[in-house]
Amino acid sequence: MTVIGVGLIGGSLALAAKRAKLVEQVVGYSKRRGDLYKAVALGVLDRYSLNLSKAVQEADLVVLATPVGVLESMTRAIAPYLKKGAIVTDVGSVKGPLVSKMEACLPDGTFFVGGHPIAGSEKSGVSAALPTLFNRSVAILTPTSNTDRKALLKVARLWKGLGTSVVEMDPIKHDQTMAVVSHLPHLLAYGLMELFFHPRVTMQPLSFSAGSLRDFTRVAESSPEIWHDIFRMNQGALLEALDLYQETLEKMKKAICNAQPGEATAHTRNNVHHRSGPETLAQILMHAKTVRRKIRP
Amino acid sequence: MTVIGVGLIGGSLALAAKRAKLVEQVVGYSKRRGDLYKAVALGVLDRYSLNLSKAVQEADLVVLATPVGVLESMTRAIAPYLKKGAIVTDVGSVKGPLVSKMEACLPDGTFFVGGHPIAGSEKSGVSAALPTLFNRSVAILTPTSNTDRKALLKVARLWKGLGTSVVEMDPIKHDQTMAVVSHLPHLLAYGLMELFFHPRVTMQPLSFSAGSLRDFTRVAESSPEIWHDIFRMNQGALLEALDLYQETLEKMKKAICNAQPGEATAHTRNNVHHRSGPETLAQILMHAKTVRRKIRP
Repeated sequence: MTVIGVGLIGGSLALAAKRAKLVEQVVGYSKRRGDLYKAVALGVLDRYSLNLSKAVQEADLVVLATPVGVLESMTRAIAPYLKKGAIVTDVGSVKGPLVSKMEACLPDGTFFVGGHPIAGSEKSGVSAALPTLFNRSVAILTPTSNTDRKALLKVARLWKGLGTSVVEMDPIKHDQTMAVVSHLPHLLAYGLMELFFHPRVTMQPLSFSAGSLRDFTRVAESSPEIWHDIFRMNQGALLEALDLYQETLEKMKKAICNAQPGEATAHTRNNVHHRSGPETLAQILMHAKTVRRKIRP
Repeated sequence: MTVIGVGLIGGSLALAAKRAKLVEQVVGYSKRRGDLYKAVALGVLDRYSLNLSKAVQEADLVVLATPVGVLESMTRAIAPYLKKGAIVTDVGSVKGPLVSKMEACLPDGTFFVGGHPIAGSEKSGVSAALPTLFNRSVAILTPTSNTDRKALLKVARLWKGLGTSVVEMDPIKHDQTMAVVSHLPHLLAYGLMELFFHPRVTMQPLSFSAGSLRDFTRVAESSPEIWHDIFRMNQGALLEALDLYQETLEKMKKAICNAQPGEATAHTRNNVHHRSGPETLAQILMHAKTVRRKIRP
């Protein structure tokens, strides 16, 4: 297996695949030479090459684990050096605008399978790589009508071998889903940090930050390089989700203005969960609690 | 010490004060009889009374730990039964509209000190009480020109005895600060859960929820009863913070639309942190990361 881009995700995949004995050896390639040295020292890679053709020419499987902004150009760059039968997959968080382009870059006799493991951390870089990162997580594969079923099965087998569930999803549907459950929360967290640069807000409140702010903004420490690409490349679905979220905030504003003393207590007692007419603040808070419990722990 | 309202905060304070031997005994009062039974069984209370006058008449210190919506009426209710020299304090998350009213409820010879420990959890109820909840946290006290300095020092000593730092703050300033660092993050988290009730969003994405959504919405499991009161009573400062946040989201939208490939990478390399002209998405993400590091862990 060759991993192109040796950061948190590429590094964790290499460690996990080696530990599960799913691959003979892991070869790495990165534009950042320091990452390669570190990855070998940490046992993440068996060897590396600074030469892209040498890095991929013997690989049965090439995993692209770069920021999504360079996935297409990287696919184009490795294409001439792939051996017959090689499978190329990726771990990118954006699929819609990429999958068919990446497919089109590859020569006949090689295969592309779009993939995205739903796992990560606010940490980045190979030093943060963990062999257990994908345990009990979900990997989404995004086959198209051009996808070779055998190649798809091989990539699915890799993820399953790491204790990861595999789900197939249309690339566009993937991007809409991720916009809501991942990209929007990241955007909102970055936005809350940016709020402290607003001329009418000072940094001083940060000294009194409670657990809510801490948890809420954990992901705002994520790699700006990676998230810049994700926001830019999934901007359609993301801005649509943000529009709906802003509508929701307007609804909540009204509900707060109209909130009456004791309403939540009355609702809790009477267990009122119907949703006719404009929701009261009490209803919104109680429904939120119900939805929150549906999120897997 | 008498604790009125025996939930997460009241219960934790009782446990912590007993463990630190700062109080002789803790007497409890609650409108929920079940909470009192549970609190005694858990060792949180030494005894309880279902009669408000009996609960407070011997207390040197009465701590009001009810939802903020009933703090004023509860202060009025206990006022006739307080002994000479008694100090009343509270742990409410909203101070501006309450402190002077609560002061005014109390008879001469008794003392009011507004307080708010910045600690909590998405859990609620006395079963979630922890003697360590206030360790290394900050308690804000909100004295006014009417506050007795000796009473203020006694309440400060209680919190310090629990390993809590004490900061004095103007009640209005307190509410503005909390609006930004706590109430707004809660509102945004509740809003993100409410988004799943939007007619154009389905619940299905929840099956793919990543760590970001999980952390982001942890607080949406908080008690609707408590947060209904907080949002309602701090609505001025909260809606102002929300307005500024919405401005920030608009700015981010524009930055996303204008984002150019490779910008974040270039910025990271050149360490560009100036803020002249409209910020680029790359700048916003990098600044967010910097601010995030200022939040105490």
